[in-house]
Amino acid sequence: MTVLFSAPRWDQDVWMGRIRERAPGRALQSAGADGVVDDPEAVRYALLWQAPHGIVADLPNLEVIFWLGAGVDHLMADPDVPDVPIVRVVDPSLTRRMTEWVVLQVLTHHRDQLRYLDQQRHREWRAHRCPMAKDVRVGVMGLGELGRDAAEMLRRLGYDVAGWSRSEKTIEGVACFAGDAGFGAFLARTAILVCLLPMTPATEGILNADLFSRLARDGRIEGPVVINAGRGKSQVEADIARALDDGTLAGVSLDVFETEPLVEASPLWGHPRAILTPHVAAESDPDHLISYVFDQMETFEAGGELVNVVDRTRGY
Amino acid sequence: MTVLFSAPRWDQDVWMGRIRERAPGRALQSAGADGVVDDPEAVRYALLWQAPHGIVADLPNLEVIFWLGAGVDHLMADPDVPDVPIVRVVDPSLTRRMTEWVVLQVLTHHRDQLRYLDQQRHREWRAHRCPMAKDVRVGVMGLGELGRDAAEMLRRLGYDVAGWSRSEKTIEGVACFAGDAGFGAFLARTAILVCLLPMTPATEGILNADLFSRLARDGRIEGPVVINAGRGKSQVEADIARALDDGTLAGVSLDVFETEPLVEASPLWGHPRAILTPHVAAESDPDHLISYVFDQMETFEAGGELVNVVDRTRGY
Ligand SMILES: NC(=O)c1ccc[n+]([C@@H]2O[C@H](COP(=O)([O-])OP(=O)(O)OC[C@H]3O[C@@H](n4cnc5c(N)ncnc54)[C@H](OP(=O)(O)O)[C@@H]3O)[C@@H](O)[C@H]2O)c1
Ligand SMILES: NC(=O)c1ccc[n+]([C@@H]2O[C@H](COP(=O)([O-])OP(=O)(O)OC[C@H]3O[C@@H](n4cnc5c(N)ncnc54)[C@H](OP(=O)(O)O)[C@@H]3O)[C@@H](O)[C@H]2O)c1
Repeated sequence: MTVLFSAPRWDQDVWMGRIRERAPGRALQSAGADGVVDDPEAVRYALLWQAPHGIVADLPNLEVIFWLGAGVDHLMADPDVPDVPIVRVVDPSLTRRMTEWVVLQVLTHHRDQLRYLDQQRHREWRAHRCPMAKDVRVGVMGLGELGRDAAEMLRRLGYDVAGWSRSEKTIEGVACFAGDAGFGAFLARTAILVCLLPMTPATEGILNADLFSRLARDGRIEGPVVINAGRGKSQVEADIARALDDGTLAGVSLDVFETEPLVEASPLWGHPRAILTPHVAAESDPDHLISYVFDQMETFEAGGELVNVVDRTRGY
Repeated sequence: MTVLFSAPRWDQDVWMGRIRERAPGRALQSAGADGVVDDPEAVRYALLWQAPHGIVADLPNLEVIFWLGAGVDHLMADPDVPDVPIVRVVDPSLTRRMTEWVVLQVLTHHRDQLRYLDQQRHREWRAHRCPMAKDVRVGVMGLGELGRDAAEMLRRLGYDVAGWSRSEKTIEGVACFAGDAGFGAFLARTAILVCLLPMTPATEGILNADLFSRLARDGRIEGPVVINAGRGKSQVEADIARALDDGTLAGVSLDVFETEPLVEASPLWGHPRAILTPHVAAESDPDHLISYVFDQMETFEAGGELVNVVDRTRGY
């Protein structure tokens, strides 16, 4: 019985080497961008990241899919995934990296860093008023592994933080809203919106013109700001560009895009109030990732429970 | 007996109005940039910020000076300050604002934000390796009201934090070094240096070429970074410009300068790895500040102790 590895965008030799080191006794197969599996009958576990659709369609002895990332939208869009558990990555190193990126973006907008950098280019010495963090209302969409940690760190920095999720949550010091019922009130009190949602049919295109118009414009910061590091398909980029142009949004920070890499023609690249990063907000430490997968595999074989299993009806 | 107010760089009417509101029963005098005090005999308390030297020289009934800022170097440089207590500002709102600024600058350098902004201008999609916070060694010079809070927040964000002060300190999770004896070891383990020192004869020019050459070059971040929001006279700007040019430093963030406003001819303005802000890192909320001063005045008159009194032999 073998372990199948397929992550066409990663360096295959490096990763196969790491896997061999952690699990020297296991037989390994790999598959590239063509999705061809040499010995389908032998595959018991599939370790996948952005693998081609159809790759797990005909693996009669497959028992578990380990998806080597946090967001499973790419896999959920594959119609040919057999009914086996899908384990996704939950890794404290990834969570902390995301929190770093989110805190950096919130502070950059709140503390007017782009404006000061622009003044610097003109050798201009000019101070601007800036509200205290306690007077800045940040709202975090998605209170899972990533959103919760980011919300808690933002609160420690002094921000007035709210959060929104599908099911009800309680987080100390964070005003929690849930579902459709809480959505309007959450948006109306949010001046800096941070999106850490998974991509599902319900969250596709959720960051659109209608949402932007419902954010708080309370005059303490120049205008609403949107920060997205969830998935690009949750945002309507044409709406973002328009909202920046007409002042509905005062700024954005985006780590994810409808199409990645972002097309060269996108007007977002050149917008002075947009900060774009090339999907680098958070990645796992490779050693953590490999341990996480093989520790679970061993637990599973010893009769234990898999953790962080995707709920396929919810889609995340 | 009157209260004298002199802060030539602030809007006098606004501040006098605030004072009258908080302390309607007190007689008030004000003095401008010329330092002329109309009725010197009457002055019991002086509320000063960047007031002209000599202003307190001939106030025979002066009992307390309230310096309306955290750093008293301007006052210490005045040879004509009578031997009365000097109370400086310690204000949680000011402390938190400084921590915001420091965290923003550390994250900006650590997470390569300037490089990504530059790539964005060229519509370039390219990811760079970036160490985890736990592998980035930040060193905070000055562990007073400001340095301690910044160090603790950086630790919460996951950084490997050390601190340096005159006297020995114990801060959970922070490696503390003190005095001349600890200075070399502190520098040798520091890749991102944050300076929150007061300006005194001992700290003047401390951020110089010799110090920069002693910082850690451990390859995990591109090169050492220096961040200063203490006082400009603690830094040698010619050395900073040279260190940026020859690669001794990979970046700087400066909120304070040898001369403020920074002269237009300074090469720092145009340096691509320098972030300059116009002395805006931290300011007090005016309402907090006024309450702080008059609360102390009332405590003092009721026979209580003044707090945050400057030690004139140390100079801070
Ligand atoms: N940019 C990057 O580098 C990067 C790196 C890693 C991950 N990501 C993205 O970040 C996403 C979140 O990761 P995670 O580990 O935090 O996921 P998670 O633990 O599954 O949390 C998802 C959160 O979103 C909420 N949610 C989902 N659908 C919703 C809906 N329709 N309405 C309201 N709330 C909804 C969930 O609510 P409940 O709590 O009620 O279920 C949950 O709080 C991933 O899916 C991935 O796309 C990006
Ligand atoms: N940029 C801005 O907007 C802004 C705003 C406010 C303040 N500031 C500056 O920040 C400075 C620090 O403020 P603070 O309230 O934190 O002051 P503080 O409470 O007096 O703390 C000063 C710290 O520096 C240490 N220190 C002083 N001289 C030293 C020396 N020669 N060697 C080693 N350590 C030394 C002290 O050591 P000990 O603990 O051993 O005494 C103390 O830890 C102020 O003086 C001001 O210049 C700037």
